[in-house]
Amino acid sequence: MVAELLPSETGSDRAAPDPFGGDPVFKLHLGGKIEVTSSVKVTNADELSQAYTPGVARVCTAIAEDPSLVRRYTWKSNVVAVVTDGTAVLGLGDIGPAASLPVMEGKALLFKEFGGVDSVPIALDCTDVDEFVDTVARMAPSFGGINLEDISAPRCFEIERRLKERLDIPVFHDDQHGTAVVVLAALRNALRVTGKSISDIRVVISGAGAAGVACARILLQAGVGDLAVVDSKGVLHEDRADLNPVKLSLARDTNTGGISGRLVDALAGADLFLGVSGGTVPEDAVAQMADDAMIFALANPNPEVHPDIAHRHAAVVATGRSDFPNQINNVLAFPGIFRGAFDANASRITEGMKLAAADALAGLITESDLRPDYIIPSPFDERVAPAVAAAVAAAAVSDGVARP
Amino acid sequence: MVAELLPSETGSDRAAPDPFGGDPVFKLHLGGKIEVTSSVKVTNADELSQAYTPGVARVCTAIAEDPSLVRRYTWKSNVVAVVTDGTAVLGLGDIGPAASLPVMEGKALLFKEFGGVDSVPIALDCTDVDEFVDTVARMAPSFGGINLEDISAPRCFEIERRLKERLDIPVFHDDQHGTAVVVLAALRNALRVTGKSISDIRVVISGAGAAGVACARILLQAGVGDLAVVDSKGVLHEDRADLNPVKLSLARDTNTGGISGRLVDALAGADLFLGVSGGTVPEDAVAQMADDAMIFALANPNPEVHPDIAHRHAAVVATGRSDFPNQINNVLAFPGIFRGAFDANASRITEGMKLAAADALAGLITESDLRPDYIIPSPFDERVAPAVAAAVAAAAVSDGVARP
Repeated sequence: MVAELLPSETGSDRAAPDPFGGDPVFKLHLGGKIEVTSSVKVTNADELSQAYTPGVARVCTAIAEDPSLVRRYTWKSNVVAVVTDGTAVLGLGDIGPAASLPVMEGKALLFKEFGGVDSVPIALDCTDVDEFVDTVARMAPSFGGINLEDISAPRCFEIERRLKERLDIPVFHDDQHGTAVVVLAALRNALRVTGKSISDIRVVISGAGAAGVACARILLQAGVGDLAVVDSKGVLHEDRADLNPVKLSLARDTNTGGISGRLVDALAGADLFLGVSGGTVPEDAVAQMADDAMIFALANPNPEVHPDIAHRHAAVVATGRSDFPNQINNVLAFPGIFRGAFDANASRITEGMKLAAADALAGLITESDLRPDYIIPSPFDERVAPAVAAAVAAAAVSDGVARP
Repeated sequence: MVAELLPSETGSDRAAPDPFGGDPVFKLHLGGKIEVTSSVKVTNADELSQAYTPGVARVCTAIAEDPSLVRRYTWKSNVVAVVTDGTAVLGLGDIGPAASLPVMEGKALLFKEFGGVDSVPIALDCTDVDEFVDTVARMAPSFGGINLEDISAPRCFEIERRLKERLDIPVFHDDQHGTAVVVLAALRNALRVTGKSISDIRVVISGAGAAGVACARILLQAGVGDLAVVDSKGVLHEDRADLNPVKLSLARDTNTGGISGRLVDALAGADLFLGVSGGTVPEDAVAQMADDAMIFALANPNPEVHPDIAHRHAAVVATGRSDFPNQINNVLAFPGIFRGAFDANASRITEGMKLAAADALAGLITESDLRPDYIIPSPFDERVAPAVAAAVAAAAVSDGVARP
């Protein structure tokens, strides 16, 4: 309506010289990456009285009488809050809510571009678990789902558990489950390449934070029998006195071989190394892995095992980087998962929905296309989000969490 | 990117029959009125690595080192949270957060269409003042301003006061100050029409809720000397034992004539009747007003005095309705006020900024255009938001709340 007021032209400091002159990343971020636009036009008094007062009162009254109508007559059914406290942002650590905003905006951008899902960055100025949970629960009426993001472990586990108990909308910590879904999809196809069976492989996960714990859980669910998780102090086992409750529970459910010691000890004879920790694994440790090993070294920008080294000892190699083949990227999962959950009006995201997402993602690579360097689709493969969404929506129905 | 996933086509219940068949208002609201769109495109790995990981980490790091950069490199500097608890929605009362969403979305739509301001509806599931304040304060890092909306009085006064103290961004309860700004603008021009002086008139305000209190305060600030406020029990005066602290304070600052009794008693000889309460004022009470009286009867959809009756006894008549001349509509104020506050990077919205907004709005009507039925511009007058924004930004500078 008032084009001359658009923020890119009026923000007083937007015309100031760019202190990061030359860096295209800063140029791209000027003024932010998202905006709220209206999907109806208001150009005269009639339209105004329909979109706003007095007409809007009829819609409010209808929702007050039948709360399920909020899904039909507002954007709630298509909008996710991307919520963080800025305590574990990318590999940068606890940089606080304001500095986390560019990541949350990026997430919102990807939700819309890849899944047609609206989303809003909410960076919270509170790190207490009770306060975080209360705050998100109070704002939940405005949103159709909650995507938790970049929250430090082990706080993230309790926050997610309590919000899932309290809310009747999907709550999904992407650093956990988005990663886990894509890892499982990649593993399914790596197994097809190597001819191994999921129940026979031995898996070592380096990292017991959000991603490590969730990957371990989904791999156990998918049928991995022998799995050890390693944190900075060594292999998780029940006798360690230094484990928080989440790690202790994981220790009880893993490491059936009773391994103790360091990562290098666990890697001997392992079929899959999954790195979600950072750090570097020495080549001689990698060299001890089983024949036709699989190495998923996801740390960014420096994989735990550089692909050049990994390829000397493994049949299939994946990283988190876009400049190597087989990129494990959460954007393959979260847009389609929320798209599918919203399409089914799901009250939650179940284990079954996550497994279905992984299978749908893996299934996009046909037998004839499958290669050691093509076990996972590209983020720009337009089949991805629709396939994931359809599988997730169907699983929501079969898991009984879809609503009419 | 995935056009087939757009919510309007996939939401499972969007294809269901419309229970409100025929009503264009419901049709317009299908799927909501706003969406989040990306202002940068991500179509290949390079663009993805700039808008998201790993490139985005450089922007996060820069903001962590210099927090003021959040304004430059995120959408924070242009986005308002429209926050309610659904306790006083339009004339519908306490209908709760979900049922309030259509109004909040409408507000977001108007912010963007009229002011180029992004905004996000946040309907909170909490009515305790402490909880409300804490919740909004915790989410404040994500937003450049807070627009409070449809919160019941007197809770709204304390909520606004405490948030203003606690936050370094503009906090503005539109039901109070948006209304007050437009009323003052209309009064300025009604005085030009009637040839009266603001310091000489006697004003009676019916209603001591959010709008009534704020209108009283801005009129006192603007120089009205004789002003009485009437609530459902009668004229506010210091001796009434039933007044909450806000009303008691207002009683002390008004009613210098020491009137007691009902509205009808106060109206005798009054120059301006301002109705922000609902209810109906009997014609014989209106008939007692001064010569060249002014009647602003803002209740919607039923003005306290119907314009046909008001015109028999007043020289200037305004309502809240779009189908009569002189519509007092908040949309004349809030988009330009936030546009101006954002353009100045203002830390708050001062009394001076509100007065400047009112003067700018009034000043749009030139001497030659001014008529009894044209004292306030149309919401669709494209000069409105730019004029209000420029005046507000300038006042922010002179009031010392603009930031570089």
